[in-house]
Amino acid sequence: MTSTREQDLADRARALDAAHAATDLRDRFVLPAGVIYLDGNSLGALPASVPAAVADAVARQWGTDLIASWNSHGWWQAPERTGDRLAPVLGAAAGQVLVGESTTVRLHQVLHAAAGLRPDGRVLVVDPGAFPTDLYVSAGVAEQVGWRVVESAPDRLPDTLAALAADGVPVAAVSYSHVDFRTGRLWDLPGLTRMTHEAGALAVWDLCHSAGAIPVDLDANDVDLAVGCGYKFLNGGPGAPAFVYVAHRHQDSFVNVLPGWHGHAEPFAMSAQYSPAPGIVRARVGSPPLLSLLALDAALDVFDGVDVRAVRARSLSLTAYLRTAIEVLVPGTAFASPAADELRGSQVSVVHPEAYGIVQALIARGVIGDFRTPDVVRLGVAAPYLTHAQLLAAALALRDVLAAGEHLDPAYAERPTVT
Amino acid sequence: MTSTREQDLADRARALDAAHAATDLRDRFVLPAGVIYLDGNSLGALPASVPAAVADAVARQWGTDLIASWNSHGWWQAPERTGDRLAPVLGAAAGQVLVGESTTVRLHQVLHAAAGLRPDGRVLVVDPGAFPTDLYVSAGVAEQVGWRVVESAPDRLPDTLAALAADGVPVAAVSYSHVDFRTGRLWDLPGLTRMTHEAGALAVWDLCHSAGAIPVDLDANDVDLAVGCGYKFLNGGPGAPAFVYVAHRHQDSFVNVLPGWHGHAEPFAMSAQYSPAPGIVRARVGSPPLLSLLALDAALDVFDGVDVRAVRARSLSLTAYLRTAIEVLVPGTAFASPAADELRGSQVSVVHPEAYGIVQALIARGVIGDFRTPDVVRLGVAAPYLTHAQLLAAALALRDVLAAGEHLDPAYAERPTVT
Repeated sequence: MTSTREQDLADRARALDAAHAATDLRDRFVLPAGVIYLDGNSLGALPASVPAAVADAVARQWGTDLIASWNSHGWWQAPERTGDRLAPVLGAAAGQVLVGESTTVRLHQVLHAAAGLRPDGRVLVVDPGAFPTDLYVSAGVAEQVGWRVVESAPDRLPDTLAALAADGVPVAAVSYSHVDFRTGRLWDLPGLTRMTHEAGALAVWDLCHSAGAIPVDLDANDVDLAVGCGYKFLNGGPGAPAFVYVAHRHQDSFVNVLPGWHGHAEPFAMSAQYSPAPGIVRARVGSPPLLSLLALDAALDVFDGVDVRAVRARSLSLTAYLRTAIEVLVPGTAFASPAADELRGSQVSVVHPEAYGIVQALIARGVIGDFRTPDVVRLGVAAPYLTHAQLLAAALALRDVLAAGEHLDPAYAERPTVT
Repeated sequence: MTSTREQDLADRARALDAAHAATDLRDRFVLPAGVIYLDGNSLGALPASVPAAVADAVARQWGTDLIASWNSHGWWQAPERTGDRLAPVLGAAAGQVLVGESTTVRLHQVLHAAAGLRPDGRVLVVDPGAFPTDLYVSAGVAEQVGWRVVESAPDRLPDTLAALAADGVPVAAVSYSHVDFRTGRLWDLPGLTRMTHEAGALAVWDLCHSAGAIPVDLDANDVDLAVGCGYKFLNGGPGAPAFVYVAHRHQDSFVNVLPGWHGHAEPFAMSAQYSPAPGIVRARVGSPPLLSLLALDAALDVFDGVDVRAVRARSLSLTAYLRTAIEVLVPGTAFASPAADELRGSQVSVVHPEAYGIVQALIARGVIGDFRTPDVVRLGVAAPYLTHAQLLAAALALRDVLAAGEHLDPAYAERPTVT
């Protein structure tokens, strides 16, 4: 028997799905039956346009046209062409976004470039809650270029910058993630960027958890440098190439710490001297992994005719609804993700001491989220292919898992080292 | 009417193809009809095992199994698993080869690691004829770590090392390519490595033009560090991930200049401090581009049950035959590639002032080679999928192109900036 409050939630889901029907893009994806996929913030689902595009890249372009494809199928220009396709999703004019290499490599690259752009800078500000890779890369580059790393949560940035200014320490760059990977907390990119500029520093943003889900407006916000991965809300496939953004105004002075022939002004002159290409092309590193890159390119079909603002509106409705449904069905639930729209990325993070077991028990019920140590049940909401009705089903599954103690199954007692 | 010498060449091709029938692996590839493909040293042909493997990775692993594939399909371990599959091709025991990132990134990484392994070294020796990227990366790393770059062709290395020793300058590393990309000259990896070690330096090898074509015997030759690309004689597809080799004895001291969570000892602990994984895993950088990586993995099926020595024997027969056929059919041809087996990689390079036009005219006849500035017609010989009969056809095409002056077609007067 369905309770009244469950019926109310179902009615509300139906009404919201009807109201948001225009942004239901499920037909642009291939989704397995019987699964509610809440991990699109880790690996985006498969866009319907990808299988044929990849098969064509393999059989026709590589297999038949072979080496000629570098020209005839535009392989050589793919990193900047796909970058230009991605640019509107990031609020960037053409010629500033490039696709290729991993996020790790791209962050290393832009931090080095930042050091070149701010030769007098002595400090790099980072968020101690950043994704581990960001912290490792920041520490590494800082050691190489002689920066001191100052840790400051984004909401403490005003105090941090004021203290550094009072000490007369010039800040080279502030490097933050737009969305906290654990909590889903959305940081104020426009305000923090402004603040960073007022301190004379460069704003470097990691957009892994916002690109494709949240308007970033890189140009309008005057961001200097940004990176992000292609496999989360951009749905580019496992380990899809990352992207890098270098604002036009910095390109002439952008020094590439990883120079390869692909970023040379005249690559086929095969010159022994490196002479950087004009524009964003100088950020190229090595040969791009084309099968993965062309998959990402095809995946961007999802955004054809779609404004990321509409995706964001749908996401806010979905995440607000998911939180409400959990609050109603599992009273007393603690959340790491903020309740306020303006502070919330595209995920709902539940805090629970048995988070690992909960995630596993939900997966056994076909609700795929993920666990983030030590106690976070991360429910990613990729708006284009999720409905309010599915999120109700996920909340019901969470209620049932907890009610039946399924999360306490001894099989979940030992966490694997990898997952 | 076929001339006697042409008939002799045809007879010889038939006899050689019969003698080498055991290493004719054309049925392991999908090759377009009507094409003689002499650019496998730039982009290897499509192995027959790849299309289904990639389709499975897209539709079943990504599309259906989604995030679970990191465990259930072994995505997480793919870089080291594919590295271990590749290891025998390189003469390396397991646990020393890793796949992922571009060659540019890998060379940057191992040169930095070399600096850490030889903290007292002051000089990096490079070949001025190296592939441009190698020179750019070498110069960049040298500037970062405070090395002086000393240029020395490999055959001058004894003198160079003697002069540096006489001046009391400690050499950190000697970084060479096994095969010269223009001329196809094969350098003496065992001897040069020995000489490098006698000077107290590390031997760093770029195997782009030998991996999969020529025995490298990394372990037996005591090589320290090596890199190479996956898309030439390894047939991994356009921009396939590169590989890196770190000898067991250096792994504990290997410092990764590009540290990411994938190379962490406990990645899912999400620690703010970087603690490198044991073994080759610490060389991991970012998320690997899995569609491209799994294509490379499937491509290695070509080497199942195949000793690279047998590939090399076939290649030597093919390249010797191609040279002879050209000498017979186009008397007076100048070659950049050496005649002696022990000095020749897996290509024949013809030198001609109209090289660009010749390459284009050959392509128009279905013989695909490539041009390397300023005057090289590069005819790559990927032994597994070429026959002596095909190489005779290529030599005949070259003769006919030159006889008819097809290479002087005004359409070829202007070289595109990209190709």
